[in-house]
Amino acid sequence: MKNRQVRLAARPVGLPKPSDWQIVDEAVTDPTEGQILVEVSHLSLDPAMRGWMNEGKSYIRPVAIGEVMRAGGAGKVVKSSNPKFAVGDVVTGGFGVQQYALSDGKGVIKVDTRLVPLPVYLGTLGMPGMTAYFGLLDIGKPKAGETVVVSGAAGAVGTVVGQIARIMGCRVVGIAGGADKCRYLTSELGFDAAIDYKNEDVKAMLKERCPKGIDVYFDNVGGEILDACLARLAMHARIVICGAISQYNNADGMKGPGNYMSLLVNRASMTGMVVFDYADRYGEAAREMAGWIAGGKLKTREDVVEGGVDAFPETLLKLFKGENFGKLVLKMEA
Amino acid sequence: MKNRQVRLAARPVGLPKPSDWQIVDEAVTDPTEGQILVEVSHLSLDPAMRGWMNEGKSYIRPVAIGEVMRAGGAGKVVKSSNPKFAVGDVVTGGFGVQQYALSDGKGVIKVDTRLVPLPVYLGTLGMPGMTAYFGLLDIGKPKAGETVVVSGAAGAVGTVVGQIARIMGCRVVGIAGGADKCRYLTSELGFDAAIDYKNEDVKAMLKERCPKGIDVYFDNVGGEILDACLARLAMHARIVICGAISQYNNADGMKGPGNYMSLLVNRASMTGMVVFDYADRYGEAAREMAGWIAGGKLKTREDVVEGGVDAFPETLLKLFKGENFGKLVLKMEA
Repeated sequence: MKNRQVRLAARPVGLPKPSDWQIVDEAVTDPTEGQILVEVSHLSLDPAMRGWMNEGKSYIRPVAIGEVMRAGGAGKVVKSSNPKFAVGDVVTGGFGVQQYALSDGKGVIKVDTRLVPLPVYLGTLGMPGMTAYFGLLDIGKPKAGETVVVSGAAGAVGTVVGQIARIMGCRVVGIAGGADKCRYLTSELGFDAAIDYKNEDVKAMLKERCPKGIDVYFDNVGGEILDACLARLAMHARIVICGAISQYNNADGMKGPGNYMSLLVNRASMTGMVVFDYADRYGEAAREMAGWIAGGKLKTREDVVEGGVDAFPETLLKLFKGENFGKLVLKMEA
Repeated sequence: MKNRQVRLAARPVGLPKPSDWQIVDEAVTDPTEGQILVEVSHLSLDPAMRGWMNEGKSYIRPVAIGEVMRAGGAGKVVKSSNPKFAVGDVVTGGFGVQQYALSDGKGVIKVDTRLVPLPVYLGTLGMPGMTAYFGLLDIGKPKAGETVVVSGAAGAVGTVVGQIARIMGCRVVGIAGGADKCRYLTSELGFDAAIDYKNEDVKAMLKERCPKGIDVYFDNVGGEILDACLARLAMHARIVICGAISQYNNADGMKGPGNYMSLLVNRASMTGMVVFDYADRYGEAAREMAGWIAGGKLKTREDVVEGGVDAFPETLLKLFKGENFGKLVLKMEA
């Protein structure tokens, strides 16, 4: 039995290129005492992965050169030497970009695919959903009647942020790329308005769509869109810094928000969040969101790409080109 | 009796030039019912003035072209048609850059020069002191043992921020320009360390002087120093955005902080403040700070320049060249 893996071969400059990866086949080894062997069926592809490929201090250690690329995933336990897991259990965890993962069970969660399909556990009920839930509610603190703007609105985090804000009674404006995505936000997910950053003047549209200003801005993208939102803040606005996907592949460094003095003018704040801090509350969030899903208040959308580990390098780029629509998941080959 | 005034003639591009001002003599008029006439003896010169000269929405309306330049000041009531004020009262208020000001008494405060010299009421017990007090305590929320960094540390706000942080039991590092200012901070004001941004590598020195990172950064300057502090944040750090003097005269716009994603890595926040929001608590702050002054815990320093209204355009530039040392005050001619 072979275990095909994607390992980091070099630290990318700009967009990751094929030569930044190395695809290798290893023998599958048996679990030792306390371990399980998971056959991975789905991989979670996330913008944060780009950051993990860089050298230097961040909220998590970088993936080392030669190491299997870090990734969340889902699969089935095929061998178990850990009493908490049985062969046949369906699980999610940090399995990496590979077909088989050995795990000591830390951070591995058994899931029930009779409730929602497996990819949902990588999206709305996985890290992106947790990020949306805690980032919006704990940092953004939206109040009914307020205007919430989210960028990357048709992505895994953005779709959840906007829908939770609607559930909280807010007016929600999503910023996404392309007419299809924008239509989806307003006609399927109940967003009050959408702005197509690829074809519309974001600054002008924000003025039109947020006549009373922005109370909460949930930022997934950074760059010019962050600056446009800063220019449109309401008094005492809260900006949640969740990501900066427009900047991750800048070879010459991040562009800072030139309009940040709007924080002063509007007595506003900009606060960073990392979802791992909320690990002991994931259960609480998952239960509440599962209830919303069951009640039809929270819709999920996954963009499942076939092709297995070999397709990983190319599929990851969809995130940075804005080509994914909903949570990007890579399906392993049967 | 003539009233010499400085009026805004044009909106400056970059540093204000002489032609951006118009100096005019007007006749002094008598107060009408409810008004007082104040003979101004001292003017407060503040970095914020540069922002008031720009067009566009901010936290206060811009000074109009042709209008007397807005300024805080101190002086003596020479005529009164307002029962709350008597001739001879010494007062502070928003009198503008002129020798005589008519006022309806709003925002005018009677002060007692037997307690502290009049210029102190424009500095530590005036707007700069209030800004330091509320910005540090209400937004920065320093706890004993934490590391507080302040830029513009030898200025009107910075000297007070650092000393209050020391009173709160914090480790305090000041960033100022020049060896004299740095020596003053550590040997006179009790700062734990100072960094001379004109002659030292701020980033390297921050690493050395803040081995556990920065818990509170009180930013008066923006630009490269803000970026250097962002790169050195401790977990859950708070940045107080009070000003950005290094950026006010950029003709091609503000430079944003490229390291702002450090807010995410460190779960940190950046919050803007405007002192006017605390107007109903100025009395509380003034009483506490007057107590600290009397007890020798809070030292004040004013940089009083002679020359009256004619010297205003040139003296204001000292702020942007970092030439003032303590609170910059312009003394009217006798």
